Amino acid sequence: MTVPRYTRLIQSLPASVPFVGPEEQERTRGAPFAARLGANENVFGPSPKAIAAMQAETLEIWKYGDPTSFDLRNALAAHMRVQPQNILVGEGIDGLLGYLVRLLISQGDAVVTSDGAYPTFNYHVTGFGGIIHKVPYNGDHEDPAALFAKAKEVEAKLVYLANPDNPMGTWHAGTVIAQALNELPEDCLLLLDEAYVEFAPEGTAAQVDVEDPRIIRMRTFSKAYGMAGARIGYAVGAEGLIRNFDKIRNHFGMNRMAQTGALAALNDQDWLAQTQAKVSQARDRISRIAGDNGLTILPSATNFVAVDCGADGDFARKVLAALVARGIFVRMPFVAPQDRCIRISCGRPEDLDLLAEALPLALAEARK
Amino acid sequence: MTVPRYTRLIQSLPASVPFVGPEEQERTRGAPFAARLGANENVFGPSPKAIAAMQAETLEIWKYGDPTSFDLRNALAAHMRVQPQNILVGEGIDGLLGYLVRLLISQGDAVVTSDGAYPTFNYHVTGFGGIIHKVPYNGDHEDPAALFAKAKEVEAKLVYLANPDNPMGTWHAGTVIAQALNELPEDCLLLLDEAYVEFAPEGTAAQVDVEDPRIIRMRTFSKAYGMAGARIGYAVGAEGLIRNFDKIRNHFGMNRMAQTGALAALNDQDWLAQTQAKVSQARDRISRIAGDNGLTILPSATNFVAVDCGADGDFARKVLAALVARGIFVRMPFVAPQDRCIRISCGRPEDLDLLAEALPLALAEARK
Repeated sequence: MTVPRYTRLIQSLPASVPFVGPEEQERTRGAPFAARLGANENVFGPSPKAIAAMQAETLEIWKYGDPTSFDLRNALAAHMRVQPQNILVGEGIDGLLGYLVRLLISQGDAVVTSDGAYPTFNYHVTGFGGIIHKVPYNGDHEDPAALFAKAKEVEAKLVYLANPDNPMGTWHAGTVIAQALNELPEDCLLLLDEAYVEFAPEGTAAQVDVEDPRIIRMRTFSKAYGMAGARIGYAVGAEGLIRNFDKIRNHFGMNRMAQTGALAALNDQDWLAQTQAKVSQARDRISRIAGDNGLTILPSATNFVAVDCGADGDFARKVLAALVARGIFVRMPFVAPQDRCIRISCGRPEDLDLLAEALPLALAEARK
Repeated sequence: MTVPRYTRLIQSLPASVPFVGPEEQERTRGAPFAARLGANENVFGPSPKAIAAMQAETLEIWKYGDPTSFDLRNALAAHMRVQPQNILVGEGIDGLLGYLVRLLISQGDAVVTSDGAYPTFNYHVTGFGGIIHKVPYNGDHEDPAALFAKAKEVEAKLVYLANPDNPMGTWHAGTVIAQALNELPEDCLLLLDEAYVEFAPEGTAAQVDVEDPRIIRMRTFSKAYGMAGARIGYAVGAEGLIRNFDKIRNHFGMNRMAQTGALAALNDQDWLAQTQAKVSQARDRISRIAGDNGLTILPSATNFVAVDCGADGDFARKVLAALVARGIFVRMPFVAPQDRCIRISCGRPEDLDLLAEALPLALAEARK
């Protein structure tokens, strides 16, 4: 007799985790990283006003946070030009992905995503027993037409599309996404992950009717707003869909400092503009560093850059290992042919100085 | 055609939420509460060292938190005299309850709890399709013998027991719990909720082998450590059970400030002792206020006191409404005969001064 008696689904799940954190890598290697450029964190950090707001809120931390995130949700609604009932605040996009999958997917239900797209989405789908169908990238871009055709073929309940994309940093114009929606099966929900959209050119966010029941979008304070450690994301969608999250979500799950900090961050769009400029400069610098080493980069609409190491995945994995060994935390795509690249987050000038030093050595070591 | 296509389970779930937060009540009544004594928050707050640690950590908030909560988990293991692999840190006990239920319960599985015990546990069980079987309180105490007998009768996979209990504040000696375990069915997991145990007399925590596969305990930084808004709790149990949470949990779900603050709070046991003393004084004061109004209290091992209003639930609900109308946020048990009581959290002297003023007026109004 085994106790406890896990569900059959839980017994079938692998023990693997989506990502190993840099702290664990640091403990394994016995030294801290010199540059933290692997998790697409925003090293430029949040608005000083957000920091001040969080520091002040520590004095109120004895209180639970507002389970409706009323103030933040209203501010986000104004920002997104929708109604507050179109917004759900949650524990990062990762948390919201879990809730959304739980709402739609039970054992055997079909889900479509790109091969090599965000692993944590797949983790949640598998965790609720869904069957993942993958389509390849098209020229290092997500391929809306192929995704939606596959969704039709397998009668998918849910399809995942990130715009801009992670891990490649590529993007489609919002009009391309909106146009492709015509091919989305009528009974399929599109999850549009816009985690990086604030870094993208004007017009990347698709203009869609928020009450269109076929689409939900997710955004975050982890990237452009520099608050990854606060765990705060939001979903924007039709009122009926947003309301259904209330059936299952952890109502008192939001950290109070995170709520307050996010509101202050949202209200400091000047800081956001400065961050966007710094990220743009960092992308250019990474491009120059790559070029200095005979490598090319993929154009990026995010706060990271995929650097094409010019050979196959095995070679890129060697380059990555050699960078990590030199204290440069980076990650890379999982799937060929995208795994010919390594993915470098936009660091400060001093972080990229370290990259510039380490990359030629890493390449030489990989070529040995 | 309905889109999105929710699971059958989701379609069957009620739209109700476990608790309405005080902020929503304040917006409805158009004024803030003068005393916040309804959610068993700890108004004495966290250690100043925890506050300082959280404030400093705001500068690191651009980084994701460590998904393994390594430092905190190690400190908790030492504190609990177990191994780090016996500890899981999560998004408050509420979040951990959801994960645990998901590990064990699928549609139709039997779960046992007390009638009137923690509603958020029931919310999660219902949310995963479990069937809840309830046993009544016995003299305003949870009744381990009845819970375990019911678990045997319905072949429950999971049984919930809080010690000390919420909402009554009553408790059993740890030896009573340990003794009762002999009657727990061999294939049933006991979830022992010890959210309030730091307020209880020595010996309230049951001494059980952490590797006993039939028991998991949960504790929190929300109550005695004064950090409800940080959302940080922990589970203590057999290594195999703890490891299984990794199959489904939101690995990067922990707020970074919360992790740092909890570690500092745990390391300041002097502050905890001061809090315990203040809470004890507040319990005595609530007892005197009740006595001054001809009411009696239930002995409490928590940071709240159930005050017996001396009549039925309808009367207690009137008293509660009259207190709320006077700006005193309190809550009360949901189920008869425990709903003859209102539940008052241990406030500061100035909070309890307001209670002392309002209670006679509320009683007079309820008696009209």
